[in-house]
Amino acid sequence: MELKQPYLLFLGDAADALAAKVAQGIKTWRPDYCVGQFRLKNCNADCGLPDLTIKDAAAAGAKTLVIGVANRGGIISEEWISVLIEALESGMDIAAGLHNKLADIPELVACAEKNGRSLFDVRYPTQVYPVASGKKRSGKRVLTVGTDCSVGKMYTSLAIEKEMTDRGMDADFRATGQTGILISGGGVSADCVVADFIAGAIETITPAADEKHWDVIEGQGSLFHASYSGVTLGLIHGSQPDALVLCHEPTRDHMRGLPDYKQPTIKACIELNQTMARLVNPKATVVGVSINTSGLEEQAALEYMDKVESEIGLPVIDPFRQGVARIVDKLSEI
Amino acid sequence: MELKQPYLLFLGDAADALAAKVAQGIKTWRPDYCVGQFRLKNCNADCGLPDLTIKDAAAAGAKTLVIGVANRGGIISEEWISVLIEALESGMDIAAGLHNKLADIPELVACAEKNGRSLFDVRYPTQVYPVASGKKRSGKRVLTVGTDCSVGKMYTSLAIEKEMTDRGMDADFRATGQTGILISGGGVSADCVVADFIAGAIETITPAADEKHWDVIEGQGSLFHASYSGVTLGLIHGSQPDALVLCHEPTRDHMRGLPDYKQPTIKACIELNQTMARLVNPKATVVGVSINTSGLEEQAALEYMDKVESEIGLPVIDPFRQGVARIVDKLSEI
Repeated sequence: MELKQPYLLFLGDAADALAAKVAQGIKTWRPDYCVGQFRLKNCNADCGLPDLTIKDAAAAGAKTLVIGVANRGGIISEEWISVLIEALESGMDIAAGLHNKLADIPELVACAEKNGRSLFDVRYPTQVYPVASGKKRSGKRVLTVGTDCSVGKMYTSLAIEKEMTDRGMDADFRATGQTGILISGGGVSADCVVADFIAGAIETITPAADEKHWDVIEGQGSLFHASYSGVTLGLIHGSQPDALVLCHEPTRDHMRGLPDYKQPTIKACIELNQTMARLVNPKATVVGVSINTSGLEEQAALEYMDKVESEIGLPVIDPFRQGVARIVDKLSEI
Repeated sequence: MELKQPYLLFLGDAADALAAKVAQGIKTWRPDYCVGQFRLKNCNADCGLPDLTIKDAAAAGAKTLVIGVANRGGIISEEWISVLIEALESGMDIAAGLHNKLADIPELVACAEKNGRSLFDVRYPTQVYPVASGKKRSGKRVLTVGTDCSVGKMYTSLAIEKEMTDRGMDADFRATGQTGILISGGGVSADCVVADFIAGAIETITPAADEKHWDVIEGQGSLFHASYSGVTLGLIHGSQPDALVLCHEPTRDHMRGLPDYKQPTIKACIELNQTMARLVNPKATVVGVSINTSGLEEQAALEYMDKVESEIGLPVIDPFRQGVARIVDKLSEI
């Protein structure tokens, strides 16, 4: 799955900024990929890109219209269809990460065929992945892991990739979820792969590379999350990471979606992730902790991070507040 | 997925006894389910059941023809088709656990439809499973885990179920692989479920039950197997096991299919499985070790098991040589 750039970001009738967070993510991390945005009349989001008609976007070279908005139930609404048809007829592919598939809408399928265009439902793997071989591959790999789901693994991974490329290091973000795929244009939605092939899919998207090259692999779920731990472990074993970065959100009472489960401690999470990763790469080490402190005031956030850092003796940062430079410093030593 | 009993076991043109091991497994563990066997002329296997024509089997009440033979590549051969057609026309369903699907053979699909019969490709889940809730369920659960793949987890689970029911305990074997499903008539092929739903599928097939009821859950893979560990962890977390039984095969040089990976020690395997299981059930404990000593002479086997038992202080048995009574004794205390 490789999406063609540049993109026209479709914000549709986004109810608010949060509903368009996929589009915002693409704009933030891949500004060069974006020629503009398309908004319907009742759209309440704005990525700060030029508002283009489909015609203008095509003239500006847009190759893919990316649906950057999520609405209730992941539905592709009737209102959108005429816009999508126009985009296909103007020579663009369409990419979406919704539960409901573009490929299940006969009108879009027929129009794409007629115009020789592609529909990308990036949530659903289209290729057959092999069973993981477990073989050591050349190149370096860092994987983000978490105390829980939705704690900033994608954000942290993209921030690490950016810091590395800003320093002239050779690095690629490897997406394992639909938003990451739409941002970077490739990858695999790990939780949608058939269970036997989780690790094999990750081996496939992080192939052997130059010895100095870094794959920065987006993690999923948590070893401590009763619903998704299998995906997480498959990701760890397919990545064979040289380094891990632990991501955490400090204001939660319990595991996301699991009211009966307490959050693990950062220390326990570091230890268990290292244990599991060392089964496939004896050198695997957690090099730092990335904390999403958006739920704390600045002073409280800084105090919290100081406290964790003195407890574990590793760099503890909020990638949004302070950037990931101290973590990339550690990675540079590997 | 619930297969109707009794079965006619189809041995086809099995090259040798090993090729018909699925049929043999059904005969061994569910003799009451079997009215007879069907063999083609060049069949070199024999489950010791009456050889029946399709007509005779239908007259004897057979409800499902089970393909109990695996041939090279999991192919459904031309030679078989006419027999399968006759079975469908005689009122039987057909069940198979092969890679190639019955449902992909138009002739069989048409014949099944015409006769109101079903084709069961038990390797492929047909229902949508939920994301695991992680909620505590009533009833007791024991899960088999392994140092590696193919070390006797299904055999051990079936032996535990049998020992329990022989003692008048309330127990059900819960199949998680195609052979186990064909033997017991239900379950889910855990490694073929979409990754997000591994644990949810296991919660579904091991629902809340009477407090004294035991689910004996067939494990898959190994936490130490780089290709399949995700499936294993999903199984552990979906099972929320009260007890685990570790299965082991002592003559291997390396992990199955992974020449670069050494086998873990039994002690390390007990510890890691307990650690992972206790994330969802703090009481989870390994209660014994089941060793497949078929590769050792009797004296060597007994000495080996004695040695392991004195090292770990838990019952160590070969379910084939000695049965699982000592493990069920331990489970009875829970």
